[in-house]
Amino acid sequence: MPTNLIPGNAVIGQAGGPTAVINQSLVGVVQGLLEARAGIDPATGRPSSGSAPGQPSPIKKILGMRHGVRGLVNADFYDFTSTNPEHLERLARTPSAALGSTRDKPDAAYCQRIFEACKKHDIRYFFYIGGNDSSDTCRLVNETARSTNYELRCFHIPKTVDNDLMENDHCPGFPSAARFVAMACMADFMDNISLPGIKINVVMGRHAGFLTAASALARRADRLDPSTDGPQLIYLPEVPFDMDRFVADVEHWYAKKGRCHIAVSEGIQDKDHNPIAAKLFEGETDAHGNVQLSGSGALGDALADFLKKKLTPAGGKPPRVRADTFGYIQRCFPDPSPVDAREARAAGREAARLALSGDLDGSIAIQRTSPIEPGALYAAALKRVDLSAIAAKTRVMPPEFIEGHSNVSRRFLDYCRPLVGELPPFERL
Amino acid sequence: MPTNLIPGNAVIGQAGGPTAVINQSLVGVVQGLLEARAGIDPATGRPSSGSAPGQPSPIKKILGMRHGVRGLVNADFYDFTSTNPEHLERLARTPSAALGSTRDKPDAAYCQRIFEACKKHDIRYFFYIGGNDSSDTCRLVNETARSTNYELRCFHIPKTVDNDLMENDHCPGFPSAARFVAMACMADFMDNISLPGIKINVVMGRHAGFLTAASALARRADRLDPSTDGPQLIYLPEVPFDMDRFVADVEHWYAKKGRCHIAVSEGIQDKDHNPIAAKLFEGETDAHGNVQLSGSGALGDALADFLKKKLTPAGGKPPRVRADTFGYIQRCFPDPSPVDAREARAAGREAARLALSGDLDGSIAIQRTSPIEPGALYAAALKRVDLSAIAAKTRVMPPEFIEGHSNVSRRFLDYCRPLVGELPPFERL
Repeated sequence: MPTNLIPGNAVIGQAGGPTAVINQSLVGVVQGLLEARAGIDPATGRPSSGSAPGQPSPIKKILGMRHGVRGLVNADFYDFTSTNPEHLERLARTPSAALGSTRDKPDAAYCQRIFEACKKHDIRYFFYIGGNDSSDTCRLVNETARSTNYELRCFHIPKTVDNDLMENDHCPGFPSAARFVAMACMADFMDNISLPGIKINVVMGRHAGFLTAASALARRADRLDPSTDGPQLIYLPEVPFDMDRFVADVEHWYAKKGRCHIAVSEGIQDKDHNPIAAKLFEGETDAHGNVQLSGSGALGDALADFLKKKLTPAGGKPPRVRADTFGYIQRCFPDPSPVDAREARAAGREAARLALSGDLDGSIAIQRTSPIEPGALYAAALKRVDLSAIAAKTRVMPPEFIEGHSNVSRRFLDYCRPLVGELPPFERL
Repeated sequence: MPTNLIPGNAVIGQAGGPTAVINQSLVGVVQGLLEARAGIDPATGRPSSGSAPGQPSPIKKILGMRHGVRGLVNADFYDFTSTNPEHLERLARTPSAALGSTRDKPDAAYCQRIFEACKKHDIRYFFYIGGNDSSDTCRLVNETARSTNYELRCFHIPKTVDNDLMENDHCPGFPSAARFVAMACMADFMDNISLPGIKINVVMGRHAGFLTAASALARRADRLDPSTDGPQLIYLPEVPFDMDRFVADVEHWYAKKGRCHIAVSEGIQDKDHNPIAAKLFEGETDAHGNVQLSGSGALGDALADFLKKKLTPAGGKPPRVRADTFGYIQRCFPDPSPVDAREARAAGREAARLALSGDLDGSIAIQRTSPIEPGALYAAALKRVDLSAIAAKTRVMPPEFIEGHSNVSRRFLDYCRPLVGELPPFERL
């Protein structure tokens, strides 16, 4: 361990929408710091050279901020310093954000209060687990500290079911949510062929379609052909959504099969980037002026009503059209992908390791080291990237993951399949 | 095996909403019949006395009707007679109705066509897996056969996530759906304390509240106290729903905790038995004149809008209110309760056994043989009951399962807990 580390307290926060594995990252940071306090060098996993357990460590207290930076400015902390290891293990396996989360997006004045709180509570190590807004908070806090020469080591640990962080192959939280979407769509497609009709499933993702695209894993084997297994149609925010083309797409499958299974992102947009949800109904807007997409069935219901109206033959009966919105369940369902649980923990530990190895700031990125190919043995590595490379930026589905206007590519399937874990084998007559 | 069994074909159908384990029952019937064809006495599990494998069995062909009785009248069959056993095992573990389902509710004329089809295809054994409507179909077909002295052995195998069949402790399909509801509510409650607000989850169940009541299993240990863990409020169709009382209930918890987690049945009714869904919006009606409840987020969204309006302080900001509707996923999610999978299979086998043991008709009921007590070792037995005891009747939550107007009783928890299998242990700070 470098000897130039300024002794002080460490603080950890969780922000944004919770996930099934965000507590794995929390526990990863806490464990990394606890081991450092116990005299174990995070770089080697062995007792620090020249140090013995019990020797003063640069980490004094390990504090959790309750509800993110709001807990920091309000001095609302949970003290992890003497937490029992079994408690931590159980916590890691519990979904959602154990410390509480926040949607606060600090401006310069708020950042100043955060920074003042850091000084007041002798905080020298700052860890923040979240998405692109949270990495921006981390970047702002870091810059404020730098500008006043207060040494604060600031690290961001990625988390988002939307999978929309730059520099990352994928983000902790996404594989588990993708697993849920795939399993829900597998079962719901069987439901749809059992009682045929038109079925719309609305999946999370305001700007990035990764999670909606994961519905394609519901198809058996690696088939891209939507004529055998559903979903037949997959609509992503990255591809302009046209209402007339949508009706024609559904009509095609409904005429051919007497049914149609559809996955649609809550964030679908028209060619001018206007959210379809905003066009179809007057939704509530959040603190950032975004239309409320989750926690409402409005988009699915509006699309279903639209299809019913358009596909009812003159004087005839409307087709059976149903819409489900997967909602908040998809981000926290307690059946995480094993890869995701492992990586989320490792990302937390890596942030602690870097902070104690002399690094001043950064974000932990997951980078795949195995090829994206059918049958490749999945492997990934963690890499430090600059906060500015992640902060407030949004990654969307690359064109090579998209096929046509309503399907994903084989490359996307090869990308996504190793992340979600084993899916149950289904049989058909 | 009795020697007075008239040789003929057997036919099996699946009807109503599919479940995670309805294919277990299908495979149970098929296996029972296949073993009889192989000369194994279903009563003893040993080669029939005086018979040897290969000896003529009363069962000629084993036919699956595609999409229930519709497949029977249209001669649309799947032939199970020489199905490979591994294929059957995989099929049993696949959710939804492998043969396809139907919502057809035959009248006397339709029943006549069913009966004609039975005669035409030399069917002497009729098995129908479904809920109360399907048991009524079975009863009607049985009576038509009796009235013309055509020997047709008619058996109903229970299936319904609503858990609303008479004579049954619980119905195959319910434990798996209850497991999903409990797990989804566990995770969603953690989500709700992480990002506080008012959260409504709408659960299936038109007349019976069992599935909504299962949300109470989301609370840790056996706590009935909603002040520690959610859901704080549980609304069942059995208890008249009053909009003003609903607002007061939510206001109470929101004032106390700054959040409120709510489970509400899609079938909630006012004191005059009018569905709240019908009062709040003009829903689509189905073939039986019922308002469409599932496959739409309308009820949850209407309740959320109502709360927002009522709970917004004069000149102030509306509270964060979100609604998710669990939708079709809850009935087929591919993580069945082990008890449910086992019992659904056993119920199918028992129907085959009874038919081949000389019984003419009946429904298979699951009856608990262990006490409903905390810590009791769960045990159940299968019992033949008359079709008329089940047909077209609806069981609802007994008063001893309900506590007050927005909670379940300890007895309900003791009833439900052994059915759903292990739930993941969650930890809080």
